[in-house]
Parts: sequence; C-alpha cells; structure tokens
Amino acid sequence: MHHYTSASFSAVQNIGHQLARAGNLVTAEMDLALKDLRITSRQLGILLAMQHRSAATPVELAKMLSIDAGLMTRMLDKLEANDLLKRSRSTCDRRRVNLVLTERGHEVAAAVPEYAPKMLNGRLKRFTNAEFEELGRLLQKFIGE
Amino acid sequence: MHHYTSASFSAVQNIGHQLARAGNLVTAEMDLALKDLRITSRQLGILLAMQHRSAATPVELAKMLSIDAGLMTRMLDKLEANDLLKRSRSTCDRRRVNLVLTERGHEVAAAVPEYAPKMLNGRLKRFTNAEFEELGRLLQKFIGE
Repeated sequence: MHHYTSASFSAVQNIGHQLARAGNLVTAEMDLALKDLRITSRQLGILLAMQHRSAATPVELAKMLSIDAGLMTRMLDKLEANDLLKRSRSTCDRRRVNLVLTERGHEVAAAVPEYAPKMLNGRLKRFTNAEFEELGRLLQKFIGE
Repeated sequence: MHHYTSASFSAVQNIGHQLARAGNLVTAEMDLALKDLRITSRQLGILLAMQHRSAATPVELAKMLSIDAGLMTRMLDKLEANDLLKRSRSTCDRRRVNLVLTERGHEVAAAVPEYAPKMLNGRLKRFTNAEFEELGRLLQKFIGE
C-alpha cells in the first residue's frame, strides 16, 4: 500500500524524519551512557555483534548495522588502534578478512549491559509492554529481515 | 516500566540497535533518492523545517532534528556555500542568527515531494494503514514531544 503521495508528504511528521531523528537521539544518548567505557554507540554495535558471533567479517558487519563499507573500514581502523579488535587474513581465502575481539574487546563488550539498558529504559518509561513489543516488531518489519 | 535489565539486554534485538539501524537505512536510501536534487537527507531536514517555518535559528534546527550544535554549524556552512540558505544577524538581538532560504533553497525544497515519498513507500509497502499509523505514533512517543 502507498502511504505517501507527493501531496501528503509532510516535512516534519513523516516516518523517515522520525526514524532519522529517533536514531540520532539514541546514538547521542548512548554515546553519553557509554562514556565510562570509552566507546561510542556505533562501536558498541560492532563489539556486540562480534561478541555474539553474529558477524565476523567487515562485509557482514556493514550489512548487519546498515553502515556503508567506507565508514565501516574507518571504524574498524579505530577499534583496532584502540586494541578492541584484531583483523587477520583467512588462511583458506586470502581475500577474506576475519575479525576477532581482543581480550580488552571482550571485557568492554561484557561490561555493556551495566551501562546501556538505563538509557533505553529512560526513553521507554511511558511505554506499556504491548507498545514496547509492537515498536520492536514494526522496526524489524521496516528494516525488512 | 523497565523494559530492559542487564540480563535481558540483547545485542542485536534491542530497540536502540533497531532504531539506529532503521535511521541509517533511511538516511542512506534517502540520500540516493535525493541525488538529482544534489542534497543529502540531513540537508533535506533543514530545508523542509525552514520551508515550513518550524525553525528559523541554528539552535531550533539542532533541537528539532536532534543533531548536535557542532554538526549543525558545519551543515549550515555547507548549505550556505551551496547557495541554499543565508544567515543573517537579528537586528533586535545581535547574538541571534536568523536563517532564510535563498530562491534556490525554496526551489529545491518545493521539488522534494517528487523524490522522497517513493523511497518511504518502498520500505512501507508491507505495512497496513494501522501499522503505519502506529509506527508513527510510537516513534513520536519515543522522541518524547
């Protein structure tokens, strides 16, 4: 179904604007919540994906976090410089770059649940459980996986 | 109500991750949709807010789009360099910077509804009208205004 036409498209109330804005808010507030761990919210996404073994290459990470390949390369450079992860060439396929968390990377990822939930609970404090579940479901549907 | 505890906080399924990811997707796809207008999705937010007169100063814009003040300054520099808007000091209060769209800025803002809705309709094509409305309502509740 077509929810928007040229005529109905409104500047400030459209879903695209709201998503971009909510994404900006979450990113900024999560950066603040993670200050003591000295990682940003974007770096957090990478560390957690690797901790859960849901991504092990730059390409998989870029897809999973919906970040373009160029930005992902720069973020991995920074994480490697900060001793949070290591890159290594696959021994089977030299074109493939494998990523592994360092010891420090594992420690930081393990500490995240002490810092991150508070910020989200603050934003979600007026949500009923049904609304919370529904927002998650609709965002997943929007992302399309 | 507290929706997350340290134990239940999950890396890839939490709302923060989904919002950041949906925000990244919208931004990247909208950038592509606006290529012919030679503006980015972030610049779009500024132009539309000014067109609708919902913001007229850098501070108002930063708040409205949930972008920090430093990034907003750099974006306004770029829009001014591209002849899309002009800054002027208020005659009543010299500390206040007023922003106005240039003629070209008005033209570009007016052309946006021909380009932007298609991208959003694509992402929303499996949404019923009730789901579409509910996503908008829940995002607004999350943003908190």
